[in-house]
Parts: sequence; structure tokens; C-alpha cells
Amino acid sequence: MHIHEFQDMMRRLYFHRDAERGVKGTYDWLKDELDELWEALEEKDMKAAEKEFADVIAWLASLANITGINLEKAAINKYNDKCPKCQQSPCCCTF
Amino acid sequence: MHIHEFQDMMRRLYFHRDAERGVKGTYDWLKDELDELWEALEEKDMKAAEKEFADVIAWLASLANITGINLEKAAINKYNDKCPKCQQSPCCCTF
Repeated sequence: MHIHEFQDMMRRLYFHRDAERGVKGTYDWLKDELDELWEALEEKDMKAAEKEFADVIAWLASLANITGINLEKAAINKYNDKCPKCQQSPCCCTF
Repeated sequence: MHIHEFQDMMRRLYFHRDAERGVKGTYDWLKDELDELWEALEEKDMKAAEKEFADVIAWLASLANITGINLEKAAINKYNDKCPKCQQSPCCCTF
């Protein structure tokens, strides 16, 4: 599934709710999902972690939808088969 | 670009660094990028926000790589063209 297809799916499922909730509210949900992801990883509960990874990318796509960002284009524009900082693959940044 | 292709790209670019840093360190970077995304959105700087969206999905993919999670499969398994809670499209959850 393309990143944009997943973003479109989130639009179909949730845009009406995301738009009503607004940017701050949707961002806060995304942060909460990230916390839940950490809890699952800390517990080494990989079944739960898998679901939380799905939720994080879902809420990220929801936030992209209500802020007018194309997540796939953003990702490809910045990460074009090389590290945007050192321009190498693999990355050879020294920091 | 498929979600798994983007995750593979992050593996090629950064796995060596991500694995050395470890799960907690990589998760912390992801959290930081989410904070930076908020700063850009608060400033309504959409050019900056676009780059931060890219960074968030990149770090999420990095974290998925070092924890052995297939982000695309996780996303599709949970969000299969309907809300996982109410099983409808669009979502009609009442909460």
C-alpha cells in the first residue's frame, strides 16, 4: 500500500472527525499514541507494539489530512534514497 | 512509494546507526521530531511542517526496523478500509 493510499484511507474513515477536533486535538491524540507505543515496547509486548505502530502512522496521516500535507510527497522529497544531511547511502553523518 | 519501500529505504540509510543507538534512543528522537512538528504547525510554517512530517515518518520507520515490525503490514492489518472500533467507513464511533 502506497503511503498516499493509506493517507486517503484515513481521510475516508476519519476526516470528518479529525477536522471537527482540529489540529491541536489531533496532534494530542498522536502524542498519546506514541506514548502507548513506548509502553508496549517497554513491556516487550510486540503484538501490542504492532497495533500501536499502526495507530501512530494512522494519526500521523490524519494530522497530515487536516493540515493539507501530502505525507508521501513530504517523505520522498526529504528522503530521496540518501541521507538529506550527508547526501550518502548509507548515512555517514558524524554526530 | 509503498510504506514498506520507505521502511526499506530507512533501513538502507540508517539501520547501522539506529541499531547502535537502540530502541529507547531512537524512540526519544522520534518524540523530539514530533515536538518539532508541533512547533512548525503552531507557527503555521507549512514548509517546515512538511519536512517535520517527513522526519516523523522516517523515525517511525527506523524504530520499526530495529524492533522488527513491518509498518505496512501493521497498518493494513489494523486499518482494513474500516474503523477497527465501529467497523464502518466512515467511522461512526460515538465518543
